[in-house]
Amino acid sequence: MKGKFISVEGVDGSGKSTQVALLGEYLHGKNYDVVITQEPGGTAIGNQIREVILNPDNRKMTDMTEVLLYVAARMQHIHEVIAPAISEGKIVLCSRFIDSTFAYQGYGAGVKLDFLQKLNDMTVGNLKPDLTIVYDLDPTKGLDRVAERSESAAVSLGIDRMESKDELFHQRVRAGFLKMAQEEPERIMLVDASGSVENVFEKTKSVIDRFLLRHNREGELL
Amino acid sequence: MKGKFISVEGVDGSGKSTQVALLGEYLHGKNYDVVITQEPGGTAIGNQIREVILNPDNRKMTDMTEVLLYVAARMQHIHEVIAPAISEGKIVLCSRFIDSTFAYQGYGAGVKLDFLQKLNDMTVGNLKPDLTIVYDLDPTKGLDRVAERSESAAVSLGIDRMESKDELFHQRVRAGFLKMAQEEPERIMLVDASGSVENVFEKTKSVIDRFLLRHNREGELL
Repeated sequence: MKGKFISVEGVDGSGKSTQVALLGEYLHGKNYDVVITQEPGGTAIGNQIREVILNPDNRKMTDMTEVLLYVAARMQHIHEVIAPAISEGKIVLCSRFIDSTFAYQGYGAGVKLDFLQKLNDMTVGNLKPDLTIVYDLDPTKGLDRVAERSESAAVSLGIDRMESKDELFHQRVRAGFLKMAQEEPERIMLVDASGSVENVFEKTKSVIDRFLLRHNREGELL
Repeated sequence: MKGKFISVEGVDGSGKSTQVALLGEYLHGKNYDVVITQEPGGTAIGNQIREVILNPDNRKMTDMTEVLLYVAARMQHIHEVIAPAISEGKIVLCSRFIDSTFAYQGYGAGVKLDFLQKLNDMTVGNLKPDLTIVYDLDPTKGLDRVAERSESAAVSLGIDRMESKDELFHQRVRAGFLKMAQEEPERIMLVDASGSVENVFEKTKSVIDRFLLRHNREGELL
């Protein structure tokens, strides 16, 4: 049995990590074998690349360099983590994947979408998530949450290079996610992330339950 | 006046760095404004990427990840160093450039050459060296030199991830350089690197003198 690949997307501070953790427990409770992972990173090599990307000192980084670094980390991640887990029949829950590249580097930073598409076709190829949940939130609120998280941490977390981009950038990123959700309604599900953690998780569960039901009907999952 | 872009290539231990330094002095003595640089690296961001690429612990790195990291560092290098220097009329002397990607990741590691060409066209575009010197040496001798250099260093330099690949890999890399030199005889000049530093530099000077003469005749350089 082939596994399933679920990606979770949204602007910074939209609550992806919290929801992924809850969703992991939920699926685990239903006896699914779940692998939780994230981009950029997800592997030792990917984490080294992540550090280069997010290092606030790297202000001079060109958009093209940034895109190539994200894709480099992604290829390592697919090879070591995602592809093996899918072929072992597991459910992969991944925080951020290709849609983040289109939203941040494409809609946000202005790298041409057809360049990103071509690069994706040449590298990632036809590996696409079976389901993508986009947590939609006004980026102003998201960045407030990031700032709070940073301040309340025992050790200062600081603000990374992506989080420090201006608000207009993050508004374009959000609009990018909304546009993609409209273009691929079968794969991308929007979830309003403005409520409480519990409230957002209720909505997440209903998306996941429908996804599981559909695939169980098709005899693909347990 | 537009500057000139000269790249220097060859297997590990073929003496590139030494020849680049001598060549830099030689051109400087002729009153050219010279910028000496290298790949991977050449910028602060590029050096961080270089560390990830060459880290001997990163044994699991896929060929695709490696290619993307080299190109990421290259785009930063072009943006910060190479393109500005050329447009200021300088001579850029760069140790390793696109031909190393074709030789190492293509001929050496087996990444498809048309993939590398497509990726290069999409990123680097039509920036090609005006002259490329390939220092040709049996890789067995080159790797012996690398080992000696490592042992004689005050602080152990160790052997990096590329140097540690097997001899057959380095033989394929050398053959790749030879093939490319045959395919582009106008741009790529082969120099036998098996002699002494002085001997190899005599040959280097004759290549450079011809290059300068040609471009001076065409009225492009001083």
